[in-house]
Amino acid sequence: MFVLKDAVGLTEDASKLVFLDQTQLPLKEVYVETDDIDEICDAISRLKVRGAPAIGVAAALGLAVSFNSAIRCGGNTEDRAALFHSYAEKLAASRPTAVNLSWAVNRMLFVFDRSVRDGLSGTGLRHVLLDEAISIKTEDIEKCRMISENGLKLIGKGSRILTHCNAGHLAVSRYGTALGPVHLALERGLEPVIYVDETRPLLQGARLTAYEMVRDGAETILVCDNMAASLMSSGKIDMVFVGCDRIAANGDVANKIGTCGLAVIASYFGVPFYVLGPTTTYDPDTPDGKSIIIEHRRAEEVTEMFYSERMAPEGVGVYNPAFDVTPSSLVTGYVSEYGLFDNFEDFKKSLI
Amino acid sequence: MFVLKDAVGLTEDASKLVFLDQTQLPLKEVYVETDDIDEICDAISRLKVRGAPAIGVAAALGLAVSFNSAIRCGGNTEDRAALFHSYAEKLAASRPTAVNLSWAVNRMLFVFDRSVRDGLSGTGLRHVLLDEAISIKTEDIEKCRMISENGLKLIGKGSRILTHCNAGHLAVSRYGTALGPVHLALERGLEPVIYVDETRPLLQGARLTAYEMVRDGAETILVCDNMAASLMSSGKIDMVFVGCDRIAANGDVANKIGTCGLAVIASYFGVPFYVLGPTTTYDPDTPDGKSIIIEHRRAEEVTEMFYSERMAPEGVGVYNPAFDVTPSSLVTGYVSEYGLFDNFEDFKKSLI
Repeated sequence: MFVLKDAVGLTEDASKLVFLDQTQLPLKEVYVETDDIDEICDAISRLKVRGAPAIGVAAALGLAVSFNSAIRCGGNTEDRAALFHSYAEKLAASRPTAVNLSWAVNRMLFVFDRSVRDGLSGTGLRHVLLDEAISIKTEDIEKCRMISENGLKLIGKGSRILTHCNAGHLAVSRYGTALGPVHLALERGLEPVIYVDETRPLLQGARLTAYEMVRDGAETILVCDNMAASLMSSGKIDMVFVGCDRIAANGDVANKIGTCGLAVIASYFGVPFYVLGPTTTYDPDTPDGKSIIIEHRRAEEVTEMFYSERMAPEGVGVYNPAFDVTPSSLVTGYVSEYGLFDNFEDFKKSLI
Repeated sequence: MFVLKDAVGLTEDASKLVFLDQTQLPLKEVYVETDDIDEICDAISRLKVRGAPAIGVAAALGLAVSFNSAIRCGGNTEDRAALFHSYAEKLAASRPTAVNLSWAVNRMLFVFDRSVRDGLSGTGLRHVLLDEAISIKTEDIEKCRMISENGLKLIGKGSRILTHCNAGHLAVSRYGTALGPVHLALERGLEPVIYVDETRPLLQGARLTAYEMVRDGAETILVCDNMAASLMSSGKIDMVFVGCDRIAANGDVANKIGTCGLAVIASYFGVPFYVLGPTTTYDPDTPDGKSIIIEHRRAEEVTEMFYSERMAPEGVGVYNPAFDVTPSSLVTGYVSEYGLFDNFEDFKKSLI
């Protein structure tokens, strides 16, 4: 079904993380192999690996391989624990907004600490860590498959779906969240039409979603982010599908910058707006959208295209938040691995 | 007050149109001199000259100088009339949405036909046409000055204003429409802060408005178009000022793509949304927004940055309307040369 290899995985001998460098798409398909913790953190920070679930998987696999590689050089138990914790801390700090990252890192930390208490070290410890990271990926694939099936219920023959950023198989281990149902709909002959917001400043829509959907044979129409109202007012959109980076306890959703505006516009024009993601993005410790830390990124993402050609005058200030928060009141439905929920209370009940 | 020369004018001997090639801003300030009708139409079509009022002025001046240059080569009265009408037709077709263009061309046609009926030809006819075109520009300057004064009433000390596209002095003969009040506010020590939507696909905000405001000493903050909801939800914007390309008889406003979405978002967050423009943009012959012809532009504006670097995969479709329509219900107030009107009926009454 999917043309591409998984965007995040391991080398055959499980010694290195392999990832598709998404900053080079759609022009070049470059896979990077590494077991260096700094290179892995840098890849996450620079969005070579991106998408909330994929970041979690890359962090787990990356933590396992970089630690495994480092402890081959020796050191005592205490040194190794300090090393593992320092690697985990570095990874967790590489991007602050997506909850999957800290969730995956914490899960690896939990397994590490438990294994050390249980007296594991050397090869035994390395295997446990690797197994845990691989489980995180396997579970992610299964969750995405379920999300895709659940979201597919919304799609009819020829449905016209607008999406923002990339929540496709490039953003996860396989299938996709927001795009997962669209891939399934294509496979099952529903001929969906996908409208893609280019998603400034880093153009994940133009570069990644358009690439992924065109390769999968979908009728794909690219628009600038500011064209949503024009599309919706002329009746061209049946529904909006977006992913999510963090869902607060009240149902507010942090996702790629532009999502909130899109939700407001969809609500105004009466277009249903769906948030699709694994329940690992739900964060009961964050009471509401206001409490979500929003990552602000450097000005050159806005003033220079691909950090090369200057588009704005010197001396200009820049506001460049990577995410915004959509109030739960604007969300028509939440789609998770557990189902399709038209109100947030039902989504929460599914977690119990 | 203004650092720049007028964006559209005549050479000293009034033989040629002079315009600042805005496609090369902010990196290069290149002034073009021409009396060639095809070069003038091309400049309008390619947005070297842009902004509804500036297009009208460029068309009037351009029609005068290109015709004057052509009739020096002779021809009889009928030939000349056919030539003038063909030039006018070419100009009117160079961009379909802005009403100022057809308004200015029709005004020149009216004067031409009347003058020919009155028996004018040769130097006499050339002078009448040039005078009329210069009047159009002079009136535009005066209208923009009045719009700026009327809009200034909305601005307090330190007001934070979000704008879209460029409706500054680059878009008109002098001052600006949406940016006119901001320039005046700066001059009068009110220290406004201007937030600038970059305005994809052609980046008139990043390239032109940011350039114009930074050069004028304003605190200028550039954002991507999809960041408006983030700005407004965090209380950073006091009001939105936009220009307009055509106002329909019911108050619906055609303006740069993205304006409607911005108005929807402003309304949701309770931020006042003002439309500023000369009454020449009002078109009583267009009953409502649905009747406004929207120009669709080529795909490469979206898929390639500055027609050079490809950002999207081959095979992708593109939807690229240059304008959208904002329903009058979303407009807090209209500012014209005649005043500041908080409902459209009062705006219309001011025209009588």
